[in-house]
Amino acid sequence: MKRSQYSALLTDLYELTMLAGYFDEGMHQKPAVFDLFFRTNPFTGSYAVFAGLEPALHYLEGLRFTEDDLDYLKSLEIFKPAFLHFLRDFRFTGRVTAPPEGTVVFANEPLLTVEGTLAEAQFVETALLNIINFQTLAATKAARIRLSAGDGEVLEFGLRRAQGPDGGLSVARAAFIGGVRSTSNVWAGERFGIPVKGTHAHSWIMAFADELSAFRAYADSFPDACILLVDTYDTLKSGLPNALTVARELRERGHELFGIRLDSGDLAYLSKEARRLFDEAGFPGVKIVASNELDEYVIHSIRDEGGRIDIYGVGTRLATCDGEGGGALGGVYKLVRFDGRPKLKVTSDIAKATLPDCKRVLRGIKRDGSFLMDILCLKEENIASGARVYDPTNPLRNTTVPEGVTLEEIRQTVMEGGEITVESPPLQEMADRSLAELQRLPEGSLRLFNPHRYKVAMSQGLHDLRSRLMEEIRRND
Amino acid sequence: MKRSQYSALLTDLYELTMLAGYFDEGMHQKPAVFDLFFRTNPFTGSYAVFAGLEPALHYLEGLRFTEDDLDYLKSLEIFKPAFLHFLRDFRFTGRVTAPPEGTVVFANEPLLTVEGTLAEAQFVETALLNIINFQTLAATKAARIRLSAGDGEVLEFGLRRAQGPDGGLSVARAAFIGGVRSTSNVWAGERFGIPVKGTHAHSWIMAFADELSAFRAYADSFPDACILLVDTYDTLKSGLPNALTVARELRERGHELFGIRLDSGDLAYLSKEARRLFDEAGFPGVKIVASNELDEYVIHSIRDEGGRIDIYGVGTRLATCDGEGGGALGGVYKLVRFDGRPKLKVTSDIAKATLPDCKRVLRGIKRDGSFLMDILCLKEENIASGARVYDPTNPLRNTTVPEGVTLEEIRQTVMEGGEITVESPPLQEMADRSLAELQRLPEGSLRLFNPHRYKVAMSQGLHDLRSRLMEEIRRND
Repeated sequence: MKRSQYSALLTDLYELTMLAGYFDEGMHQKPAVFDLFFRTNPFTGSYAVFAGLEPALHYLEGLRFTEDDLDYLKSLEIFKPAFLHFLRDFRFTGRVTAPPEGTVVFANEPLLTVEGTLAEAQFVETALLNIINFQTLAATKAARIRLSAGDGEVLEFGLRRAQGPDGGLSVARAAFIGGVRSTSNVWAGERFGIPVKGTHAHSWIMAFADELSAFRAYADSFPDACILLVDTYDTLKSGLPNALTVARELRERGHELFGIRLDSGDLAYLSKEARRLFDEAGFPGVKIVASNELDEYVIHSIRDEGGRIDIYGVGTRLATCDGEGGGALGGVYKLVRFDGRPKLKVTSDIAKATLPDCKRVLRGIKRDGSFLMDILCLKEENIASGARVYDPTNPLRNTTVPEGVTLEEIRQTVMEGGEITVESPPLQEMADRSLAELQRLPEGSLRLFNPHRYKVAMSQGLHDLRSRLMEEIRRND
Repeated sequence: MKRSQYSALLTDLYELTMLAGYFDEGMHQKPAVFDLFFRTNPFTGSYAVFAGLEPALHYLEGLRFTEDDLDYLKSLEIFKPAFLHFLRDFRFTGRVTAPPEGTVVFANEPLLTVEGTLAEAQFVETALLNIINFQTLAATKAARIRLSAGDGEVLEFGLRRAQGPDGGLSVARAAFIGGVRSTSNVWAGERFGIPVKGTHAHSWIMAFADELSAFRAYADSFPDACILLVDTYDTLKSGLPNALTVARELRERGHELFGIRLDSGDLAYLSKEARRLFDEAGFPGVKIVASNELDEYVIHSIRDEGGRIDIYGVGTRLATCDGEGGGALGGVYKLVRFDGRPKLKVTSDIAKATLPDCKRVLRGIKRDGSFLMDILCLKEENIASGARVYDPTNPLRNTTVPEGVTLEEIRQTVMEGGEITVESPPLQEMADRSLAELQRLPEGSLRLFNPHRYKVAMSQGLHDLRSRLMEEIRRND
């Protein structure tokens, strides 16, 4: 059995106080079902790329309190001895349903569904949100950047701006699932098998008497993987001419300069100038790498102006998931069934009412293979063409499932009895999946500005159940 | 010797390629000095709170490549055997100068200065930036939030939105240094001794037949630490009246309700209503806790409208360091001295030129104890009242150090020969320091909008050295 790297104390205190309360009430062993979902697609986009499942499952499988953990909890003087004794043998023994990592997912549909005793299913909330929220957000950001780069390659190098060492690891993993091809983070390379890339910093240039000597020395050490940073002094007057000199010298010795890196200034303009210079000198193969506060919008605008960049190095804005929504996916974890009864959280805003009970997530696929809509239905419900489906945020908007649309369940059981039941595929497979699925979204879904909104509908059965539960709550008021 | 929790592979690949290059050139043992600093105060504010030193020093002290690390690097097929052999005994053996954590610091002044061989001082760049950037950013965000809360207490509960488990730990630690009094993160409580707080979620309410039963059950389990979440159904019609009922029942049994929590709606209005209700019913001691996308601006506006909140629960926007600047401190790490010579990185923008050579950071303190300005000077330089000092971003702006101002060095040697020389104080001491220093800033510095800009000046000696080096580079052009 694989032990998790995470402490059982990786939780908000309220999970433990609730657990203690349920224990006192004798409710802790009753069956419960929770859905993990988010309410708004991140970055004002139309989709998210699901990521973080594998570490989340390892967390669940390895969950247990050590003696040190229990000593600490005892020291807080808020928990009774019987409860601490109960925690000693506490394990996650439930079932988890989820899509494979790299699946394109949407607001309001359950990502993870966690079934177990109330104790175990509630307790894991914080850790699951911590892991899934951030990795899904980062994979989504990466997909947006990768799509904006077109045929260009994207390199992630956000480690120095990430939230600590582990934040950097998570970013690298999630970004690869979202379509980024390599990372500067060596630890992530070793841990996850992601290709690592890198060249040198300005300090390399400054450690030598002049730029040309610095370039030559670097080319000597890495004749076949040499990328020269050309903006330390002056990109056009000094950096590019010196890089060209080195390219010629390398060729004389049977090597080819791999590329140059632009790290400041007008990247669209400078990349065109660099391309022209190297092309005219007979070096069409020299790659142009660019970096400096890049994100999907900046890359889009550089390409719009005819920039000639081959590899985009993206750091801060990927590592921090900068953009609309403030660096966080608003994933939540809600009780949908308890002790044999479907549960609903109502609010004054119907759009925020949860969707009760155990659900399936069906993806409606057209004959040409493109995705039409997702449908959330009850577990036992059968949906086919002609079925009426409803907008969960406004049930007055409803439609029928068209002819010729096939419905595929996007989730599967990934953990049963607390044990992982599905082997996690290689990261590359997750990355392939995300790219392939993104290409199958309806036209306009990938647009950066005002994208087409993918439809997520609820079935007749789910609609009726929710209406009935709402009515019951209203009557009790 | 304390081993670091961090792998030596916690680095950008380019640190290793540069190291390999320096090794090839025989330059790797030459002495070098790097400064770690940032160029802009975060969040459009006037200051930052320095944090992250203790973990950074542990990283440096424990730095070594394991056999697994070396095997991985070998597998990349870009490093020569002699270099990999060199890495086997690679250690950080240098000197580090830094302020204590919790010190208020400013743009353009060196936080860490790292002296050692070129190899070791360059190699640690990425890890130091990763650790210091984020913790300093989070401590600063926490200080801003804490100051906006006035007499109110701030509780950090951002774990579910942090960048992975370790991101959550870093946030909790840094936030405490910045003045946040407690965390929901139990792991952080155990690791760092930070007080942990928490209550229950909406799911607690939903697991019971009705809200009042849920409140009663929670109060039964935690009669002396009971905070009731009152917005599951309707705050005014249901949540607050039910909480009041429980407050009365608790008092009959000799306990007092600790508080209620508002998590949605108009927090200013609802907190005033809640305060009135409990005061009129004879429960002036019941605390009002509020949460829901809080940050320094929202808290400021709630207090501005007379909101009556005692404890602010701050999650997402603290954990992600949301705000102007996009969740990242732009800390950089620049070569300032190499092989016995001061070094300078020039750019077309004088404001971005680095400050060369080993420096001291002096804080000018007025007779009343308030801070007037910081002065960066050369190591051997003596500065006193009457000395002329210059704005590094625009040397035409200059002034003299007034009479009666004492100059205190804010940094000290914290590592010598690769070993930590100063015991890290308790986190509480760091938190006390940050609060005390913030109170000593010039009037208007703590304002949220358009704050007074604290002056960071350079000495005559530093000014002259920089001018001379710039002139030399210009002549070589």
